[in-house]
Amino acid sequence: MVQNWKKLASKQLADYRIFTVRQDRRVSPRTGREHDFFVLDADDWVNVIPLTPEGKVVLIHQFRHGTGEVTVEIPGGIVDLADGDPSVAARRELLEETGYEADEIIHIGTVDPNPAFLNNKCHTYLALNARWVQTPQFDGAEDIAVEEADLADVAGMIGDGRITHALVVTAFYHLERYRAKERRGAKAASG
Amino acid sequence: MVQNWKKLASKQLADYRIFTVRQDRRVSPRTGREHDFFVLDADDWVNVIPLTPEGKVVLIHQFRHGTGEVTVEIPGGIVDLADGDPSVAARRELLEETGYEADEIIHIGTVDPNPAFLNNKCHTYLALNARWVQTPQFDGAEDIAVEEADLADVAGMIGDGRITHALVVTAFYHLERYRAKERRGAKAASG
Repeated sequence: MVQNWKKLASKQLADYRIFTVRQDRRVSPRTGREHDFFVLDADDWVNVIPLTPEGKVVLIHQFRHGTGEVTVEIPGGIVDLADGDPSVAARRELLEETGYEADEIIHIGTVDPNPAFLNNKCHTYLALNARWVQTPQFDGAEDIAVEEADLADVAGMIGDGRITHALVVTAFYHLERYRAKERRGAKAASG
Repeated sequence: MVQNWKKLASKQLADYRIFTVRQDRRVSPRTGREHDFFVLDADDWVNVIPLTPEGKVVLIHQFRHGTGEVTVEIPGGIVDLADGDPSVAARRELLEETGYEADEIIHIGTVDPNPAFLNNKCHTYLALNARWVQTPQFDGAEDIAVEEADLADVAGMIGDGRITHALVVTAFYHLERYRAKERRGAKAASG
């Protein structure tokens, strides 16, 4: 049985706006020896799979500064303190980044973006009956293009490397599970 | 069409061993204004789905310092300079963390762990005919327990939050795609 490592000390080293860096000293329950670990403290994130009444998925294209490339993703962002519930952040990011609003927002999964060195979570929502209502509201550092794609094409886009963002892939994993459960429910109700 | 942001300047701010932090100044192609972005430079990562001859998947339990919790994952780690090819890192991490060796290592997918602020990639491998050959070789800061689970149970473990690591979820997304393709291939060959 693997045990927790007791924390002996912790200090913040730097503040990089989207996360702070902290150094934790912990003791190994196996060896009794002390080690230092770097941890990023970040607010939780959300992402949203918006489905239109026609069954299309709303994708966004944007330049990403980590990889220095334009990516294909779903809308998402940081859960602000003012959002309170992550579902509020999901609706807000959907509207800001795409100009779409949805009738219903359903939580379909939560992951740890990287438990090795990030402390936060990413919550995934399905946005049903998403419809364009206004021009997107970009902040100065955003530049986003919106595309409606066939949901059936997404698996191929992940397979051939057009969609590469790990958190977008996890979102579609959770969507497949959610839809399989829905289908089993419908079958049970009709059978 | 979304365009690349031209890089005007770049400087390294800190070295935290598993990544360095750099600040890039780039100019928005939309507004012409300059913005600073924090980027983590990290070596590529690998993870491995080891399948035994009996069709079990080899999972590991370890304490993770980002979330401060014990997680259930697949083996994985950093591609060292000495590894050269990521498949070498995959075999090495599999042996070090679990004590298993595999007959065949197949690349089934690559993702960007987080293109917003990480520059690296994570490569996923399927390890076939994985068998226990020796006691795992932990470094001082590792403490890992190994479990063989039914592959069919993994989707449920992701669904109910026992498996939460985003990169582990993406690995199983790529495995499902790989196996679906294999089944289509077998069907085409027999039909």
